[in-house]
Amino acid sequence: MGVKITGVGSYIPQHVEKNESFMENTFLNTDGSKINYSTDVIIDKFKAITGIAERRYAKTHQTASDLGFLAAEKAIEDAGIDPETLDYIIVAHNFGDVRSDSVQSDILPSLASRIKHSLGIKNPSCVGYDILFGCPGWVEGVIQANAYIKSGIAKRCLVIGAETLSRVVDKYDRDSMIYSDGAGATIIEGTAEEGGILTHKTATFAADEAYYLFSGKSYAEPENDTRYIKMHGRKIYNFALTNVPLAMKECVDESGVSIDRIKKIFIHQANEKMDEAIVARFYKLYDKPMPDHIMPMSISKLGNSSVATIPTLYDLYLQGEIQQDNLNPGDVIIFASVGAGMNINAMVYKY
Amino acid sequence: MGVKITGVGSYIPQHVEKNESFMENTFLNTDGSKINYSTDVIIDKFKAITGIAERRYAKTHQTASDLGFLAAEKAIEDAGIDPETLDYIIVAHNFGDVRSDSVQSDILPSLASRIKHSLGIKNPSCVGYDILFGCPGWVEGVIQANAYIKSGIAKRCLVIGAETLSRVVDKYDRDSMIYSDGAGATIIEGTAEEGGILTHKTATFAADEAYYLFSGKSYAEPENDTRYIKMHGRKIYNFALTNVPLAMKECVDESGVSIDRIKKIFIHQANEKMDEAIVARFYKLYDKPMPDHIMPMSISKLGNSSVATIPTLYDLYLQGEIQQDNLNPGDVIIFASVGAGMNINAMVYKY
Repeated sequence: MGVKITGVGSYIPQHVEKNESFMENTFLNTDGSKINYSTDVIIDKFKAITGIAERRYAKTHQTASDLGFLAAEKAIEDAGIDPETLDYIIVAHNFGDVRSDSVQSDILPSLASRIKHSLGIKNPSCVGYDILFGCPGWVEGVIQANAYIKSGIAKRCLVIGAETLSRVVDKYDRDSMIYSDGAGATIIEGTAEEGGILTHKTATFAADEAYYLFSGKSYAEPENDTRYIKMHGRKIYNFALTNVPLAMKECVDESGVSIDRIKKIFIHQANEKMDEAIVARFYKLYDKPMPDHIMPMSISKLGNSSVATIPTLYDLYLQGEIQQDNLNPGDVIIFASVGAGMNINAMVYKY
Repeated sequence: MGVKITGVGSYIPQHVEKNESFMENTFLNTDGSKINYSTDVIIDKFKAITGIAERRYAKTHQTASDLGFLAAEKAIEDAGIDPETLDYIIVAHNFGDVRSDSVQSDILPSLASRIKHSLGIKNPSCVGYDILFGCPGWVEGVIQANAYIKSGIAKRCLVIGAETLSRVVDKYDRDSMIYSDGAGATIIEGTAEEGGILTHKTATFAADEAYYLFSGKSYAEPENDTRYIKMHGRKIYNFALTNVPLAMKECVDESGVSIDRIKKIFIHQANEKMDEAIVARFYKLYDKPMPDHIMPMSISKLGNSSVATIPTLYDLYLQGEIQQDNLNPGDVIIFASVGAGMNINAMVYKY
């Protein structure tokens, strides 16, 4: 029996926020001093490193659970299932519903309950809960669904990643240009087919690494207690380059699948240069060059929407909107992610 | 093989907030009008219904993850395990870390990462994540740990419930007197012994019920967008009385254990009258009267600390601080909870 992704959907907000729209921002160093470059130079450097040219922002009336609901509707339709037959709704996020005029995270009730409500699912045995696991939350939700299916307490799960990071940024921080809004959703089912989730690996590094991503004050207003998403970018880069390739390799080796059979790698869209370096390092562990077109990428147009990037990327790829080739039954792919916690995960999946 | 609770710990904040300390409050109706009773009458009625005489508040410098860490230390010591051997740290809460001077929920990084950091656990294979599941979050965390152990991806898990509800109350709402701060923690392990978790049942009611507990504005300041914990108490009461006994009965019947063998019921400390009515209704489903001393209770002294009530209650009971009798190997008990979502769960457990 294979545990498979039988439906995929995503919701990409229509509003495009281009790099140029940050031209009026004043970017500061962590100590509040002005950065010694003109804003256009800061934006050019940002683009060169992250690959991000534009990102999407939700409409002011939308919250993360609204985006998650819209993605979930599409995944349910794609799988062709009756939503009343779902055993679990697992929603990954990191800030909950943040209204556009608020700094509060609204997580009561859980986003899973909100989305279940919006989907109109009445069956009380469909259990909804949220997980907080940094950017790797959607992959981890799939790993949890796999555990429930394998332990016999579920047959069919809806796993969603939804986030509105545009609501939690410090506009004085150049990293604010990274973040984006979006949602991706998948149906995970126990099937009679072979394949599906072959192996997975998860790790939490919380010694020195616990606060590499954290809730911090504005660089402009340290006297104001309001917190925003903050990161130690250089430390994250080095951490990810060391640890993500190892987690991916552990999964591949445990699966027994040859490295040469990996068709595509769907990696969390954190930062283009970092993602490329991770995958190059992964192949280097096998003394191989990184194959062309191995990494479908969406970050240049969609930015980093945290938990939403991988299911959104996978959905766009399956729809032929990123690369022209496609997956055939038996093809092996990898999902991999890294983010706050610091958490890492990877999964080898036979399509 | 039995999946068992092999260690229990709790952290009860030292600061006692007595009902009398609310005498200076002005309690309002939902529409902002003044309640037509004197404050002492409101407090007396509150005491008669909820059973709460006093509750505990964390020190101003403490957050929910601090309380969770202190409870976890005790559970680890009680189990006599090396924390580096933990496979999972699962933390249930509903508001994250809310600093005493803030209205923001700080959930980046997850409380699990913060607690793992505080515990000094270095092993990256110890995976930490948070779940949001209303007050039944701790029981649900145990159910998740059970699934990981049964599916072979874990052997030993730390499951924590931690909350500082005193930080998210509207002081104009008389329900604010219900809420309390605290944390409880447990070690869950696969063992060679028989017994442990026999059966469990979870339900999410998110049709009409999704917003019975919700984030709402202050009754005094509807123009202010800050949100507080709010509830539709009467609806919750009726909902819980209908659905919790059925979930408990489903668990007991599936376990094959006779109702007469149930030694104790550890129920979420939500409201004394409601808890008693739930358990009475449960026995009525078997045409039996509720046995004396079946429900250890802590609410009169500790209030409702959400996810923390059951592990704290269980810890106090095992320490002989609530009732004089104790559990013997083979005794069967029930854990049951209800809360935001609206979520319900129950578990039959052989000690």
